[in-house]
Amino acid sequence: MTEFRNMPTELTPIQEILLVAAECFMERGFHATSIDDVARRMNATKGRIYHYYASKTDLFFGIHREGMARLFAAVQPARETARQAAGDGAAVLGAMLRAHALALFEHHAFESVVVQGVQLHRFGALTPGQRKELDELIESRDRFEQLFKDQTDIAKADGSVGDVNTSIAVKTMLGGLQWSLIWYRPEKNSSLENREYLADQMVATLLEGLRARP
Amino acid sequence: MTEFRNMPTELTPIQEILLVAAECFMERGFHATSIDDVARRMNATKGRIYHYYASKTDLFFGIHREGMARLFAAVQPARETARQAAGDGAAVLGAMLRAHALALFEHHAFESVVVQGVQLHRFGALTPGQRKELDELIESRDRFEQLFKDQTDIAKADGSVGDVNTSIAVKTMLGGLQWSLIWYRPEKNSSLENREYLADQMVATLLEGLRARP
Repeated sequence: MTEFRNMPTELTPIQEILLVAAECFMERGFHATSIDDVARRMNATKGRIYHYYASKTDLFFGIHREGMARLFAAVQPARETARQAAGDGAAVLGAMLRAHALALFEHHAFESVVVQGVQLHRFGALTPGQRKELDELIESRDRFEQLFKDQTDIAKADGSVGDVNTSIAVKTMLGGLQWSLIWYRPEKNSSLENREYLADQMVATLLEGLRARP
Repeated sequence: MTEFRNMPTELTPIQEILLVAAECFMERGFHATSIDDVARRMNATKGRIYHYYASKTDLFFGIHREGMARLFAAVQPARETARQAAGDGAAVLGAMLRAHALALFEHHAFESVVVQGVQLHRFGALTPGQRKELDELIESRDRFEQLFKDQTDIAKADGSVGDVNTSIAVKTMLGGLQWSLIWYRPEKNSSLENREYLADQMVATLLEGLRARP
């Protein structure tokens, strides 16, 4: 129960289903996971899941939506707080990247599934209704990336970020953080102090670059 | 036939099998792909594949090995050339990152499968023999990462890279490049000029950082 370990309250039935399903999809992939697998891991019947989600694909969309919602919920307030602190554009961008990194660590299973969604979208055979739903999720991912592009442009305008290609720079920065979904192990690096150290080092790499500054 | 489009010669049977299987695994994932799927895409019989590979897992390992070999074959000569050009440690690191990015673009399907290997290793149920083979591949990935760590330490020692946490900085940089396996589309961005522009912008983001330099 990695995801909610800091939550004081009990999980709702939907939260529990989404979390357990996210862990199953993360470990075995969408195709190799069945509703039976998810139910078994919950010590529940399939009926309990079907009560909320009509199909495995719907369950996948539910996780994807929740994963995106958690990223927005982390990054947008961090942006507002940093803006009120009146740092320059690069400082606000750094605060957003840091919040994103910490959210990736905290919601590891959910965000791992969000990544799988890209491949589904790219190659999958979907019904028109599912395609529409996936398009909405892709659109929400684009909006998320746009938050960082807009802030990069603001920082270029105030002179705190140099003359970079905004789109490629943002893809590279988000990739640098999101690759932690591949190597980060929640069970090994779970203290908040450790996560904050990791996040700070990653953001420093991206914002300051490796080349020594005078 | 994205991977070999610049190759002047015909593919050997093994090269063709590995390439087509890599495309299948990339598109549907390892679990959802059968040897039948690979054979169908090659317009061949299953026997042609089984002549060279005893199982789907062996095929997967063949792709993984080939993918790693191509990364080493790109990065090591780039390092030697840059060292002979007598740039500072950061310049050599930049040349290595650039060669890695270009190899990821060129061998997109192979390197997408290499990524899947991590998840297999993390959660998969393997026979002892397969586990040993996968451990060797993981070890080769570690050696690959070590090339960049060693160069980062050299660059820290000559003062061209600042006081970063080498391990986290390298993971972040490699992640920034390797995330292109998620967003890069060979069919859209296939000109060498376009790839080189992308690689240069990505490496600049990582080496120089976003924050404006005086």
